[in-house]
Amino acid sequence: MKRSRARGASPAAIADAREALRRCDLLAGVSAREGAIERVYLSPEHARANAIVSGWIADAGMSAWQDAAGNARGTYPGATPDAPVLLLGSHLDTVPDAGRYDGILGVMIALAVVARLSARGVRLPFGIEVLGFADEEGARFGRTLLGSCAVAGTWEEGWLELRDDSGITLRDALITFGLDPDAVATAALDPARVVGYLEAHIEQGPLLLDADRPLGVVSGIMGAKRFDLAMDGQAGHAGGVPMRHRRDALLGAAATALAVERVALDEGVVGTVGELRVFPGAANVIPGRAEFSLDVRAATDAHRDRAWEAIRAHALEAAGERRLTFTENLRHVARATSSERRLSEAIEHGIRTATGEERPLELLSKAGHDAMAIASLTSYAMLFVRCGNGGVSHHPDESVTLEDVALAIDAFEAAVLAVADRA
Amino acid sequence: MKRSRARGASPAAIADAREALRRCDLLAGVSAREGAIERVYLSPEHARANAIVSGWIADAGMSAWQDAAGNARGTYPGATPDAPVLLLGSHLDTVPDAGRYDGILGVMIALAVVARLSARGVRLPFGIEVLGFADEEGARFGRTLLGSCAVAGTWEEGWLELRDDSGITLRDALITFGLDPDAVATAALDPARVVGYLEAHIEQGPLLLDADRPLGVVSGIMGAKRFDLAMDGQAGHAGGVPMRHRRDALLGAAATALAVERVALDEGVVGTVGELRVFPGAANVIPGRAEFSLDVRAATDAHRDRAWEAIRAHALEAAGERRLTFTENLRHVARATSSERRLSEAIEHGIRTATGEERPLELLSKAGHDAMAIASLTSYAMLFVRCGNGGVSHHPDESVTLEDVALAIDAFEAAVLAVADRA
Repeated sequence: MKRSRARGASPAAIADAREALRRCDLLAGVSAREGAIERVYLSPEHARANAIVSGWIADAGMSAWQDAAGNARGTYPGATPDAPVLLLGSHLDTVPDAGRYDGILGVMIALAVVARLSARGVRLPFGIEVLGFADEEGARFGRTLLGSCAVAGTWEEGWLELRDDSGITLRDALITFGLDPDAVATAALDPARVVGYLEAHIEQGPLLLDADRPLGVVSGIMGAKRFDLAMDGQAGHAGGVPMRHRRDALLGAAATALAVERVALDEGVVGTVGELRVFPGAANVIPGRAEFSLDVRAATDAHRDRAWEAIRAHALEAAGERRLTFTENLRHVARATSSERRLSEAIEHGIRTATGEERPLELLSKAGHDAMAIASLTSYAMLFVRCGNGGVSHHPDESVTLEDVALAIDAFEAAVLAVADRA
Repeated sequence: MKRSRARGASPAAIADAREALRRCDLLAGVSAREGAIERVYLSPEHARANAIVSGWIADAGMSAWQDAAGNARGTYPGATPDAPVLLLGSHLDTVPDAGRYDGILGVMIALAVVARLSARGVRLPFGIEVLGFADEEGARFGRTLLGSCAVAGTWEEGWLELRDDSGITLRDALITFGLDPDAVATAALDPARVVGYLEAHIEQGPLLLDADRPLGVVSGIMGAKRFDLAMDGQAGHAGGVPMRHRRDALLGAAATALAVERVALDEGVVGTVGELRVFPGAANVIPGRAEFSLDVRAATDAHRDRAWEAIRAHALEAAGERRLTFTENLRHVARATSSERRLSEAIEHGIRTATGEERPLELLSKAGHDAMAIASLTSYAMLFVRCGNGGVSHHPDESVTLEDVALAIDAFEAAVLAVADRA
């Protein structure tokens, strides 16, 4: 770490980073489960987290509010009343059994930067809006980026009928949360008033760690498709039905999961079966149905779709061999997106300022981010922060160092000021 | 069907069978789920089913009671006050999304036979006890045959600490049901007072159907082992973690499930993965843990154990390839058991009497039955009734014909009388 960085973080930056990490720790306790982090969209935990973050937004010298989609938002005025806004943000929701930095850290870094500007009384040629997005992971309703889509103006009416695992519709969940399902569109920003979007995020992979760099600039985000898949066969008695008579749905799903691994390795893409449920699900009953998810990502949309076609062919073959019915439902598509050059240069400038590195490392994000949704509204750039423990994320072992977060706050502030200089 | 049977069921038997099937239909509605059958041990449905069956026991001229394990029982007196008892029975609990005949039909056939004896005022050299066992499937606590083990006197104190999926212990479930956990041993019968055990049951397989026979005699029950297995790897982000860095627990479980199929086919045994759960279980998270069941059965215990060793070797190999940890926990062992010759001959005599078949078909049961547990108490024999729809069981499509049930009641009555003749 020392070898690759010409200068260290200042004591002031270390203090800001310590506060940012304290806040991540505190939010880790706002969870549906004791001893584990789980905070999904429109849950009681979501409401508590928004209330806490609102206080921090106010502490940073911003006016705090919650929009019609449940996003926590803060507004910092620009030099003139009619100034446009630069958006800074990330998400506050989590996957089940999450780490404490994914999303959260980016919001805390944005707040630290605005707090610095506010303390110095700086007014920029644009206002700043900090966004704590309410749903990026899609852990509750199976559709990701609900919060950032609402802000981008790409929220779809039909999503109100999505259901969670308990059968609760998104419409009813919004009402229970105290929101008006028919007013979600009011969360959207006018593209004409937006300068751009900057997001800081942990890398969620090992590349910065392997390269011995604390920070990186994101060139773009991989295209992803997510499917709900199912195999249907016939349930039956685990003793009574001879092996050759069986139509075991789990075996079709298992063969498909292994095909995903094989195709991903062969094609150089990433593919994951993260959910799998069998029905009826008893030790002495042959599974009659297996439901499973597929997430496939590649640097280009065409490459991703080629990999999916190969996976589908294997699934159909596995189904055919066992007289199963294979069904697919495309749950989510994210096009591959690229960051904007002007904003990326501001991030690079920020990394250079904070670390002294001549040529900041450029990374392609395999993970999806709110920036993908915001790309429909405005151009974006992203700062990645090194992830410890081999780059593990979506796991309690997710980690960052105090020093890296201090550098990230310095870099993100310098990036915002660089955007202002060119405005 | 007509070709292989010399005589048909009498109108009286058809009427008895119609009543037995009506009762099966009625109990199918005593379920935890609307539109599906699910009745597990010590549930409110179990209590309702016992209350209903008690009425039918009384209607058959027996005294009705519930024992300390929650089994529904009825006593029909013998010719003398100190006469021993012949046991007739099967189970009243079900798997999730069950058929309506598995277990239930055998209890209804036993009740129909006693009702006939009672109507004619027949007293045999032994009393009869009808048993509606409260737990054969093990769907709630993962340990099968709890009801019949209590009657056999093989109930183990330690089972009181077993937990269901909601974390409720068997001890607390007994208390909630109104039973005394420390009194379960009082449900046991004294072996010295028991003549034997006869059980009628649907076949739960296609062999009688394929052989065009309504009834069969069971030579023995396969030895079974049931395991809780797990693969542990590391959760991580479905985008961020490169394929070669992954330790995906589901892939280890999937490879093992496919190995179970392969080994079972090669070895001529039956093997089933009926449960599989992945953790944390989100579409964008690599599974860090997969828990799955294994049920393996063979005609001899040695053959079953050889197959398990082969499956285990494949599981360890799949774990090694992906840097996973494989763990196994033996949940349940059932030794292969054989029916007793004297009692089997009574069943064969019954089939001959009812159907006119010279040589009743003899079958080895791959499914476990209460008779396995009762084998520790007394000798047993079983009557199988043909299963429709390709022999499907543990499924709503489970079916029998009115005619076959009528023949089964005739055969079971003749078998009981044959035991009495030789007593």
